[in-house]
Amino acid sequence: MYSIKTDIAWSTPDSITVFGKDLPSEILGHLSFGDMAFLEITSRVPSANESRMFNAMLVTLVEHGLTPSTIATRMTYLGAPEAMQAAVAAGLSGLGSVFVGSVEGSAKLLYEALPEPGSNSDIPALARGIVSSLAEQGLIVPGIGHPFHKPIDPRTPRLIEIAEETGFSGPYVALIQEVAAEVERQKGKSMPANATGILGALCCEMGFDWKVCRGIGVMARAVGLVGHILEEARNPIAREIWLQTEKEATSHFRKDSAD
Amino acid sequence: MYSIKTDIAWSTPDSITVFGKDLPSEILGHLSFGDMAFLEITSRVPSANESRMFNAMLVTLVEHGLTPSTIATRMTYLGAPEAMQAAVAAGLSGLGSVFVGSVEGSAKLLYEALPEPGSNSDIPALARGIVSSLAEQGLIVPGIGHPFHKPIDPRTPRLIEIAEETGFSGPYVALIQEVAAEVERQKGKSMPANATGILGALCCEMGFDWKVCRGIGVMARAVGLVGHILEEARNPIAREIWLQTEKEATSHFRKDSAD
Amino acid sequence: MYSIKTDIAWSTPDSITVFGKDLPSEILGHLSFGDMAFLEITSRVPSANESRMFNAMLVTLVEHGLTPSTIATRMTYLGAPEAMQAAVAAGLSGLGSVFVGSVEGSAKLLYEALPEPGSNSDIPALARGIVSSLAEQGLIVPGIGHPFHKPIDPRTPRLIEIAEETGFSGPYVALIQEVAAEVERQKGKSMPANATGILGALCCEMGFDWKVCRGIGVMARAVGLVGHILEEARNPIAREIWLQTEKEATSHFRKDSAD
Amino acid sequence: MYSIKTDIAWSTPDSITVFGKDLPSEILGHLSFGDMAFLEITSRVPSANESRMFNAMLVTLVEHGLTPSTIATRMTYLGAPEAMQAAVAAGLSGLGSVFVGSVEGSAKLLYEALPEPGSNSDIPALARGIVSSLAEQGLIVPGIGHPFHKPIDPRTPRLIEIAEETGFSGPYVALIQEVAAEVERQKGKSMPANATGILGALCCEMGFDWKVCRGIGVMARAVGLVGHILEEARNPIAREIWLQTEKEATSHFRKDSAD
Repeated sequence: MYSIKTDIAWSTPDSITVFGKDLPSEILGHLSFGDMAFLEITSRVPSANESRMFNAMLVTLVEHGLTPSTIATRMTYLGAPEAMQAAVAAGLSGLGSVFVGSVEGSAKLLYEALPEPGSNSDIPALARGIVSSLAEQGLIVPGIGHPFHKPIDPRTPRLIEIAEETGFSGPYVALIQEVAAEVERQKGKSMPANATGILGALCCEMGFDWKVCRGIGVMARAVGLVGHILEEARNPIAREIWLQTEKEATSHFRKDSAD
Repeated sequence: MYSIKTDIAWSTPDSITVFGKDLPSEILGHLSFGDMAFLEITSRVPSANESRMFNAMLVTLVEHGLTPSTIATRMTYLGAPEAMQAAVAAGLSGLGSVFVGSVEGSAKLLYEALPEPGSNSDIPALARGIVSSLAEQGLIVPGIGHPFHKPIDPRTPRLIEIAEETGFSGPYVALIQEVAAEVERQKGKSMPANATGILGALCCEMGFDWKVCRGIGVMARAVGLVGHILEEARNPIAREIWLQTEKEATSHFRKDSAD
Repeated sequence: MYSIKTDIAWSTPDSITVFGKDLPSEILGHLSFGDMAFLEITSRVPSANESRMFNAMLVTLVEHGLTPSTIATRMTYLGAPEAMQAAVAAGLSGLGSVFVGSVEGSAKLLYEALPEPGSNSDIPALARGIVSSLAEQGLIVPGIGHPFHKPIDPRTPRLIEIAEETGFSGPYVALIQEVAAEVERQKGKSMPANATGILGALCCEMGFDWKVCRGIGVMARAVGLVGHILEEARNPIAREIWLQTEKEATSHFRKDSAD
Repeated sequence: MYSIKTDIAWSTPDSITVFGKDLPSEILGHLSFGDMAFLEITSRVPSANESRMFNAMLVTLVEHGLTPSTIATRMTYLGAPEAMQAAVAAGLSGLGSVFVGSVEGSAKLLYEALPEPGSNSDIPALARGIVSSLAEQGLIVPGIGHPFHKPIDPRTPRLIEIAEETGFSGPYVALIQEVAAEVERQKGKSMPANATGILGALCCEMGFDWKVCRGIGVMARAVGLVGHILEEARNPIAREIWLQTEKEATSHFRKDSAD
């Protein structure tokens, strides 16, 4: 009947309703920014435990220092300082399969192995199945190990701790850890779950569609990118990064023409 | 000495430090998403009152239903559903001078009139000065009145209430309200401060640079845009909006060729 | 030896070299915009026939009227008219798997079936193989048929004509037409190759990597999006599209509250 | 009567009309990519001289090697190689006031000084007026001098040569050169017009609105950014740029913690 319809929000001259709630009296001052993000994702207000877990998940993804995303944002701000929103947009555009997408990969994998959390599952058997199936396909196991953080990603034990405190350390958190243990047994070296592995598992524990994982990353990084723009405004480095990079990238020409 | 330098974050194999704090032990589980956003903007953790006020400001800007931004996001998602981050980026790109920029305009105006909040100022005289100066330049007063919400933007009294509860109802909030009262006296009709006017004043009360205003809007809308993508995935409307719009926009051709 | 290196361009105080050519004396006034695009893709100047074919391919993709992309661009321009570049960026962001990606899909399919154009191939057998393989996987054949243009996409015969004139009507163009003929035989209804099917085949004829297909689409649409921004500046329609859409999308709320 | 209307393009089942022309029979194979860009900007087909001049202007702006824009594009492609269009979008987002905007600034300045090209003007007097007016406002003269290219931007004489050949070396080209001569007289050092100055003047000679200048830059750079993505795919450097930059930008932390 309604081919163009949104249920998210609508207004009358004297009211604004968002997800069925009166914005001024039921949302403003009642929901924190993180809880508002939960409302956008699930159409409902989180419980206290959901709020604590979800806020920690978002906060984990806000800031990673100077990343490809923040460099793209700073380069864009250098050329168009009057359009800060476009600089954030540029930084978000790269949150694809390579970086933030790994949370997605982990969640998908866990949901495929264990579609229903309540089922009385043999977690070690599921973990062995995941590892051997990926090995057969010649694929690496997502969410395990870290190129830089050793012996363990320092965010992992803290996220598990908060999951335990809030009741979200369930079968998916157990499964990603069992997958890590299975890889360790086979490789004979330490390969603990990393932050994206745990975050993927926590998305499953919260019952989120795997598509939501990337959305959480995008929300969180938008916050961090604004922080980088403000630092760039205080202490500009983009021009120097550009000039040094350009000089290095064309040094072979100068060397050749000097020969 | 360091021409390329960031103070936001850095890592060692077993630690991640963000704004001088250990991410796992001092931030995760301790700072909510809104407080993390405050940390990105100010490099410090908010007080309880700052947190309450700042979260309410962010939440105000998250969701406005079907706006030009959310339509841009949905159109982009229709063409590239595999790149949700690009759809959010498209929606953010339009947060410029016309919509979110109005918070900026309000904050700039108030800072110019009252550079130091502590000064013992004659608020009514400042308000008259603002209104007459803009009138001389033929400019409208930003942050006053609303094309749709009448007699008053319903967010305004609620934001003022929270500002009073948290100690942020200071000279800038008084000034924007006095500006509104002055316009009402001159025009003889109700022209109360709208949400962007109050938000601009609150940015001043919190001591933020006016550039931060747009940043807050960008952070908040990124959260809302993810919500619209998830609704679009559940209940797609972008294709129908496109087809109806295209049909209407080319109907004059069909009429002409039928003549 | 050089881990950061570009071979595209470099400058000295009195020279600019692009793809090994002196920009002022060898490129400006010698290469058209379309030939410059060919140089960016292949690192060499096109022959006269390549130039004619490639320019026609680019031109085919410039303009499609009011599409999801152009609506996203116009919505973004409405909010940030001071940042036209961000409006073009928003429009390009949706050139993903659904629309422009179909050229890619057609090229991939043809390359998989016929990796080497020179091989003495049985085109009808290859076509039957493609159609039956896709049918087994439950996939539709890309580049065939058109939801609106009937009985035939009017661009198709013209692109084939230019391909014949320029010597690019080779085995890939034959294969996509044979695929279309095979589908027609099986379905018993007309399903000619559409413009994206032919463009995919022409990318193969020119020896382009399939990744180049999307790049050609992005180049072309950037030109068209600028045209839409200039029309929007002359004759604004974005605000009206937004207001009508918002009204329709929330009409169920108004009806419900009227009940 | 028609509040939502586009005159750019429309289709029937067997025809596609673009700017009043039949796309297959009047555009494909007849207009080059550069001429199609001219059609998008002016709604008409260029003359031979317009085509030659306009193509040279576009080509001048396609490629500048490793710029902030191309770095943003490469960083985005590193994170989301599956969404090349988003990487181009990220690179375009920074084409704002600082770089491409300078063509705009030059065109605006020349139009303000000389609104009508046909008027019998005293060019030297206009030039002196421009230079003294900007000096009074403490502003630099846009389009003059170059931080790197000395004694002269090598594109400038070539663009002027083509302008002379095509009949576009009129009062605006004379005016920007006279402005440069006036600055030279005052400063006592060589300050010739640079490429953006001449391009701004040429936009005026062609009768383009100053807004069109940025549009030309956006069209041209989209082509160049695709070239950089293809080089990045062949010979990746983005990861190394990121890692080196991150290491340098956080070296003060490592030094401090070593003390």
